[in-house]
Amino acid sequence: MTLSRTNATFAPPVMEARRWLKGVSFTAEKPLINVSQAAPVAPPPEGLRRHIAEIAVSNPETHLYGPVLGLPELRAEVADHWCAAYGGKITAAQVGITSGCNQAFSAALAAIAGEGDEIILPTPWYFNHKMWLDMQGVTAVPLSTGADLLPDPDQILRLMTPRTRAIVLVTPNNPGGVEYPAELVRAIYTHARSKGVKLIVDETYRDFDSRSGAPHDLFSDPDWDQTLIQLYSFSKAYRLTGHRVGAMVCNTETLAEAEKFLDTVAICPNQLGQHAALWGMKNLSDWLAQERLEILDRRQAITDNLHKIDKNGWKLLGAGAYFAYFEHPFEMDSDALAKMLVREHAVLTLPGTMFTPDEDPLRKRSLRIAFANVDREEIGVLFDRIAAVDAPHAK
Amino acid sequence: MTLSRTNATFAPPVMEARRWLKGVSFTAEKPLINVSQAAPVAPPPEGLRRHIAEIAVSNPETHLYGPVLGLPELRAEVADHWCAAYGGKITAAQVGITSGCNQAFSAALAAIAGEGDEIILPTPWYFNHKMWLDMQGVTAVPLSTGADLLPDPDQILRLMTPRTRAIVLVTPNNPGGVEYPAELVRAIYTHARSKGVKLIVDETYRDFDSRSGAPHDLFSDPDWDQTLIQLYSFSKAYRLTGHRVGAMVCNTETLAEAEKFLDTVAICPNQLGQHAALWGMKNLSDWLAQERLEILDRRQAITDNLHKIDKNGWKLLGAGAYFAYFEHPFEMDSDALAKMLVREHAVLTLPGTMFTPDEDPLRKRSLRIAFANVDREEIGVLFDRIAAVDAPHAK
Repeated sequence: MTLSRTNATFAPPVMEARRWLKGVSFTAEKPLINVSQAAPVAPPPEGLRRHIAEIAVSNPETHLYGPVLGLPELRAEVADHWCAAYGGKITAAQVGITSGCNQAFSAALAAIAGEGDEIILPTPWYFNHKMWLDMQGVTAVPLSTGADLLPDPDQILRLMTPRTRAIVLVTPNNPGGVEYPAELVRAIYTHARSKGVKLIVDETYRDFDSRSGAPHDLFSDPDWDQTLIQLYSFSKAYRLTGHRVGAMVCNTETLAEAEKFLDTVAICPNQLGQHAALWGMKNLSDWLAQERLEILDRRQAITDNLHKIDKNGWKLLGAGAYFAYFEHPFEMDSDALAKMLVREHAVLTLPGTMFTPDEDPLRKRSLRIAFANVDREEIGVLFDRIAAVDAPHAK
Repeated sequence: MTLSRTNATFAPPVMEARRWLKGVSFTAEKPLINVSQAAPVAPPPEGLRRHIAEIAVSNPETHLYGPVLGLPELRAEVADHWCAAYGGKITAAQVGITSGCNQAFSAALAAIAGEGDEIILPTPWYFNHKMWLDMQGVTAVPLSTGADLLPDPDQILRLMTPRTRAIVLVTPNNPGGVEYPAELVRAIYTHARSKGVKLIVDETYRDFDSRSGAPHDLFSDPDWDQTLIQLYSFSKAYRLTGHRVGAMVCNTETLAEAEKFLDTVAICPNQLGQHAALWGMKNLSDWLAQERLEILDRRQAITDNLHKIDKNGWKLLGAGAYFAYFEHPFEMDSDALAKMLVREHAVLTLPGTMFTPDEDPLRKRSLRIAFANVDREEIGVLFDRIAAVDAPHAK
């Protein structure tokens, strides 16, 4: 009996973590601090909500099917914004809209890889990337990163085989928080191009990058689309996680392949969500600039509170966008620690086991904290609670 | 070099047919009649649109992530409706909400089949089913139907191998229009159960079945969920094709597997669309009853106009729900005929080539007309145009 596609992978981590809450009660004095999911600060601003409401009534066609690859106006808007933000030439025909960025990843992979192919994935990885590869019969070739959570381009070259189809980078990184230096992204791109494989760059968190200017210069190559597949999400920038709108930016041949997948899995991205994203891009740039500063302040709050736990042996390996990634000092596995944090300290995090393969050095020793939905004050409380963890230290 | 997943299948038919319109101009006197896509009559009723608008403003949480398997209230509502409609016991835990019914099919398949497995699919088939199987390395085993477009249960038994994982039925059928008799569905279910494989029944068009009462009695079996996976769409009933909301009804083990797929491909169904579906189920049953009568009248209009073309040798093989399926009398292939219908008669249909494997007897001889979005008067004009087709007849 063969395994089904889903038998080949693990249960969704965020849903599994939610199950740890069952049977645990929290008090008003010590409510749960949930830093498990990459959730926005709050719902979208009222103007955006009102725009969605208006469109729902005034534009009845938005309730019916749209094109598989998305609203032409939204594709064009992304292309315009991208040209301005990255330099280089990106056209509407090179932009496809998807039902969220996870779906953009799934579609990109379906377009370029088949059974038995290989994809190089730096670890700690984003679990849904790993799950999709498992379910598609594609081998995720793990690439351990060092203490700075950045992959070594030469190591990538050594991992390549005739079955390699792509290298996947997430920057700013989920779960690691680190922002990949432009030169590193360029070096990996150059390797990918030289080997004729794709470089997939997931920039879901680009709007919260602490650096000014373009985070990489890949789009300035006239033939960027022969190598690069960029993925994006409107969910974090405009707080639209419940609408499922993402994008993939790549050559038209890859989009034509992805269209087959998207037609079959989704038919089209939901139309109201696309109008919401379009309105956000056209009207919320000042608001988003402010939002970025707030997220960067929360990141600063992580650093400001670090003194409470580094004396206990905790190490901050990376912090950026929505995430801080820690090495913990205890003998126990990250999985056991995460469950203990729920029961004894009312803190829900995701452990390293969810972001790493079996043999990874960080597997048992790391934790991800998704801090976007907790403010500076709560971050202070969060660190007090982590500081209170009392367990045998690793030898 | 291996094929990518998408290389293994064909381009989306509806998008391909749309490309046939390029460079063809239509006049005000003879506008295009587009009967290519299963599109509803019109946008949803105003009450539903207003409800969506209200929720968008008053319930900010609907803009954020929800559970992978959907809104608990919607799952419960489906379970209640189903118990009343089909008899038997269906619980909320046995209902999963998906981003449209295509996604329900994809998720169900991922949960039960893997590379090299086989699925039995009566022909003419729904093209997105075939595309998904192609992309997943699952063999679609075609089962030719007779002149009545109904599969023979004994033939299904003969097609089964140790790699068979499921039989897929669509009733009322897309593209064939036929409503499968309850006894036929039961006979196939009995075969599936006896062989330990799943029976997937896609009931996207159930709300437009011409029969009264339950269209089959499978849910009355206490252990229905060991064999049956039922798929449903809210898109047609409530005219919500642009929102992407569907459902799968099956046992909790299969849903737990499907959850892995849905988490990775969608994270969650879009929340506003789910609220729209829930409101529709709670408030639009009288309206839907009327809607059904209108669709049934359009089906009657097909029969009423048949005399215009049957004298030319056209045969109506099936008519029901949104579709009429015809055998044409000409020497030319269905694909060439469909393109000629666009250019010379301003009619866009989908040809049999899109619904059949290479060797199928109906491949070159059939056409699908999706009539839900054309009224009785337009159907009259449609038949006049088809009657005017002048081409050499098949020998």
